Amino acid sequence: MTFLQRDVTDYSVCLYQTVWSGIKDFVPRDGRPTRERILISAEALVIENGYAATSVDQVIAASGTSKGAFFHHFGSKLDLARALVERYAAGDVAQLDAATAYAEAVTDEPLGQVDAFLAWFEERADDLMDEQSSCLYISVLTERQLVNAGTAEPIVKAVVAWRDGLARLLAAALADGAGGRRHQVDVDALADHVFVTFEGAFLLARATGDPGHMRRQLHVLRDLVRALLRAR
Amino acid sequence: MTFLQRDVTDYSVCLYQTVWSGIKDFVPRDGRPTRERILISAEALVIENGYAATSVDQVIAASGTSKGAFFHHFGSKLDLARALVERYAAGDVAQLDAATAYAEAVTDEPLGQVDAFLAWFEERADDLMDEQSSCLYISVLTERQLVNAGTAEPIVKAVVAWRDGLARLLAAALADGAGGRRHQVDVDALADHVFVTFEGAFLLARATGDPGHMRRQLHVLRDLVRALLRAR
Repeated sequence: MTFLQRDVTDYSVCLYQTVWSGIKDFVPRDGRPTRERILISAEALVIENGYAATSVDQVIAASGTSKGAFFHHFGSKLDLARALVERYAAGDVAQLDAATAYAEAVTDEPLGQVDAFLAWFEERADDLMDEQSSCLYISVLTERQLVNAGTAEPIVKAVVAWRDGLARLLAAALADGAGGRRHQVDVDALADHVFVTFEGAFLLARATGDPGHMRRQLHVLRDLVRALLRAR
Repeated sequence: MTFLQRDVTDYSVCLYQTVWSGIKDFVPRDGRPTRERILISAEALVIENGYAATSVDQVIAASGTSKGAFFHHFGSKLDLARALVERYAAGDVAQLDAATAYAEAVTDEPLGQVDAFLAWFEERADDLMDEQSSCLYISVLTERQLVNAGTAEPIVKAVVAWRDGLARLLAAALADGAGGRRHQVDVDALADHVFVTFEGAFLLARATGDPGHMRRQLHVLRDLVRALLRAR
């Protein structure tokens, strides 16, 4: 859905640019399409090459904008990084909400909800890897200067949202399924293991050049979680 | 053990440098201590800040060497990256071998061997996070230019060594414990999940500033694997 919206925005921007082809620095009244186009190009470049290895000039070239337009929207490259992470983390939390709503619509049974939640991501794994070759979080977290400049804050908020949302589903499933063993399970760490699996699988896919690892890792995660929740 | 050896090397290099304090470009006959010192400093910088964000000048300053000494040992920054990954991956495979030897010494029972293997890493998690704030693999895999330049090859070899070593232990445990369910488990993907957990936990620790996530994630991994191997 997000990606469809992006395509539509891109297309209308292209039309605009054709009509106004002589005016390279054209900025629509609310400034959104140009800003969005810069963010989309920058996100792809930073995910592919890293933040330090991506120059403002590369972002300008890839987004078909100008230095003037870039600095109209972003005070610095660091400002761009902050906006990228804000936007990406918002998309991440939207995925959590969508998967939770799906799981709760599918069944009232707690064990089934956890499984449906994980299945939702497993089914979308190949599409995810078609859309992006890695995760923006990895590019940002790799550089301590970016973390120290506060760019990791939206990541932490997203991590906590995932942890809280999943811990709620997992706690219900443990109460339902795992009988006496539920007191031994660190529910927050188990919830965090989903974030851990996504990030680790992105890296495994990048290392081996095989994007299929995302789907396989999400499937293994489902098998593992199902076994733990049903263990007695 | 590796880290103790490094400390001893560092110490003897320091003595050397004190004695020969006027000779900044001094290189011992076999060239090893200076090369090793550059690698140790560069590894810490690249893990902390990323590869593109680390300059040769920073590596020279941190290792107390000179431009002449640096380029005596490494033809370029990319050569340094290759040497860093080779060295780090060799350490990684040595850890696999040590944990496997430990697991096989502890018990003949396949389920117990898998658990001992994972426990070996869980027990060392806090020490690992004291020694390094993240993983060199993450810094390298984040930058496509480095992957394309072949620097990921030793990572892939290490991933395959871990997969093969662990799959052997896991297949024996599945044959022993999981009865009819063993045919449904993708043993290679389950083996890869250990690499995935390490890398994801490094990123979770970096994002939240809490190195304790490594220990908690390795503990959850143990719980999950134990449940899957015993599921019927």
